[in-house]
Amino acid sequence: MPKTIFVRHGRLHYFIREVLKRLRLPAPHASRVGDALVSADLAGVEGEGSSRLPLFASRIGSGLINPAADIRMLFQEQGTAVIDGDNGMGHVVGARAMEIAIEMAKKLGIAAVAARNSNDFGMAGYYARLALAEQMIGIAVSNAAPAMVPTYGTRATLGSNPVAIAIPSAEDDAPFVLDMATTATSRAELEDALRRKARLPVGLALDSSGEPTKSPKTALEAMMLLPLGSKAETGSYKGYGLALAVDALAGVLSGGSFGRELAGAEGKRQDVAGIGHFFVVIRLRAFSPWVKFRNRFKEMLHQVTTAPAAGAPRIYYPGEAEFAIEQERRATGIPLDKGVASELEGLARRLDMRDAWEHLAEGKK
Amino acid sequence: MPKTIFVRHGRLHYFIREVLKRLRLPAPHASRVGDALVSADLAGVEGEGSSRLPLFASRIGSGLINPAADIRMLFQEQGTAVIDGDNGMGHVVGARAMEIAIEMAKKLGIAAVAARNSNDFGMAGYYARLALAEQMIGIAVSNAAPAMVPTYGTRATLGSNPVAIAIPSAEDDAPFVLDMATTATSRAELEDALRRKARLPVGLALDSSGEPTKSPKTALEAMMLLPLGSKAETGSYKGYGLALAVDALAGVLSGGSFGRELAGAEGKRQDVAGIGHFFVVIRLRAFSPWVKFRNRFKEMLHQVTTAPAAGAPRIYYPGEAEFAIEQERRATGIPLDKGVASELEGLARRLDMRDAWEHLAEGKK
Repeated sequence: MPKTIFVRHGRLHYFIREVLKRLRLPAPHASRVGDALVSADLAGVEGEGSSRLPLFASRIGSGLINPAADIRMLFQEQGTAVIDGDNGMGHVVGARAMEIAIEMAKKLGIAAVAARNSNDFGMAGYYARLALAEQMIGIAVSNAAPAMVPTYGTRATLGSNPVAIAIPSAEDDAPFVLDMATTATSRAELEDALRRKARLPVGLALDSSGEPTKSPKTALEAMMLLPLGSKAETGSYKGYGLALAVDALAGVLSGGSFGRELAGAEGKRQDVAGIGHFFVVIRLRAFSPWVKFRNRFKEMLHQVTTAPAAGAPRIYYPGEAEFAIEQERRATGIPLDKGVASELEGLARRLDMRDAWEHLAEGKK
Repeated sequence: MPKTIFVRHGRLHYFIREVLKRLRLPAPHASRVGDALVSADLAGVEGEGSSRLPLFASRIGSGLINPAADIRMLFQEQGTAVIDGDNGMGHVVGARAMEIAIEMAKKLGIAAVAARNSNDFGMAGYYARLALAEQMIGIAVSNAAPAMVPTYGTRATLGSNPVAIAIPSAEDDAPFVLDMATTATSRAELEDALRRKARLPVGLALDSSGEPTKSPKTALEAMMLLPLGSKAETGSYKGYGLALAVDALAGVLSGGSFGRELAGAEGKRQDVAGIGHFFVVIRLRAFSPWVKFRNRFKEMLHQVTTAPAAGAPRIYYPGEAEFAIEQERRATGIPLDKGVASELEGLARRLDMRDAWEHLAEGKK
């Protein structure tokens, strides 16, 4: 059996959608989750892609995620809104919130939406990117289950609380998409290191006794990640401070859970996640004609990426590498490693959906 | 002669205001700069405080900063505005932009203002904090002269582009004020290390040949700072990416200068700075009743700061340490080190304002 199979992204989307419909998600919601997971797989962020489907399915099955969520508007002012995700899939709640923010920003130039009672929404950059088609800047942040040890702390009290910023670029360029955990590394990166049997550099993670570890396995078990900046003397208060600010917006301001109240998707606590998100959308043309912005942003990215480099062929901007991977995978397929393929096949079997799996697997290249 | 003199903050404000009025700033502008510089001195951020006055005076004297700036509104939509700083003092331009954003956010719940043709505005947290009195969240970012070497780069192509986020806290608590360069360290921190004759940890700065340096003097001469995250393997693309995003907003979107076009205040290039800023203000009560937010945010900060600590008496949140220093300095005075005091005295002498200096120095404790 080959280690990795390659599947067509369209068929992967279909598979995810059918599985989620079987789990009682309405078709548009199932399709939205499929879009978010396939986008992650296309971008090379496998840890937030279809590999997560079995976990989500299990949480829906055990009643920890509501497949029939009724996402409701709680408060709305001209430029702001708060929505309640009704414990639905984070991908659906996040996308809905962004859509609302985009509509408001069309009129006002800027808008913000907070969402509570949601779940892990995967790749934050997916939501930020939804603004690009409208020539808007998208910002998406989310809290998450405790995984970050604050500067001078010895216990995980905050999440790896991601921050994503997407900025439209010229038509032929990769969009600028910064998508970063506020921890120095992330669960998805640790899982990737584990698959590659790589050792970790110092400055990313601690073991359960609070000592630095180079083992991805130990790091994943302990989930005590260091803030971006790693140590106090190299600025870790900044990563820690950003994580706090994100939780203040996504957790406290949204009216949802925050800090150690959050259960997350894979912690030992079997509980509703209680995750919150916060989104800001900025309409470019409220500030600058589009062509002027596009040309100037292109010039800026050109300045930076053509400056002298060492240790890499050249300097890249955020989103470039993912865009290149996406182009390739759209053409040649998405690689599913053996473990993920086997889990997806098992999931299909349990749901009595062998046909859907066969359809996906036969489409492999 | 003592190494350090202590001066009353009110007298320091008066001194700065009188000096700037002599340099042809209108009184309200001179007062605003005094407020910004004294705030930095009170917070213990001396590198952005009155120590900068001689440099600003020199740049005004040589025509590189316009003392009689006519700050103008260029475009305005309901929730957004772009202002032209007319090459005025950054502190004046920044505060004006925040005031406009606060007024708009009162109606809409959120607003953003971009400012171009400005100058170094000092401590970014000062502007973010202006929102607190209105129970709003303030966000302030600025670009700056090249000082950051991007991940895999060998030349400074971006500024240390600061990000500040201020969030109102309960009445008796320190406000949450995260104020961070997107570089691992900053000019002000290097100057502080130089004064303390401290060595730098690895991961902050390079020398002019691109090698890591532990000397603050060498680092200040080269001004080749590493992004937050220090190295590629510990996430420096995040600090670099944040700096790019800041420049996209403060430089490109504002219609001002960006990247290597920026001259800054102390570079070798004697040129107009061309700095831009970007501000976002979020009205808390558009999302949550104030009392509910206050209580929940207090609970969150309590959770984090009372968790087990090692290497420090306890965990602090951003702004706490600065707030404690401010309380002390309001009571006992602001320390001016010998070098700074002597420069301020010299400045007063050159401007034929010995009286103003005597008034400041005699108020020392």
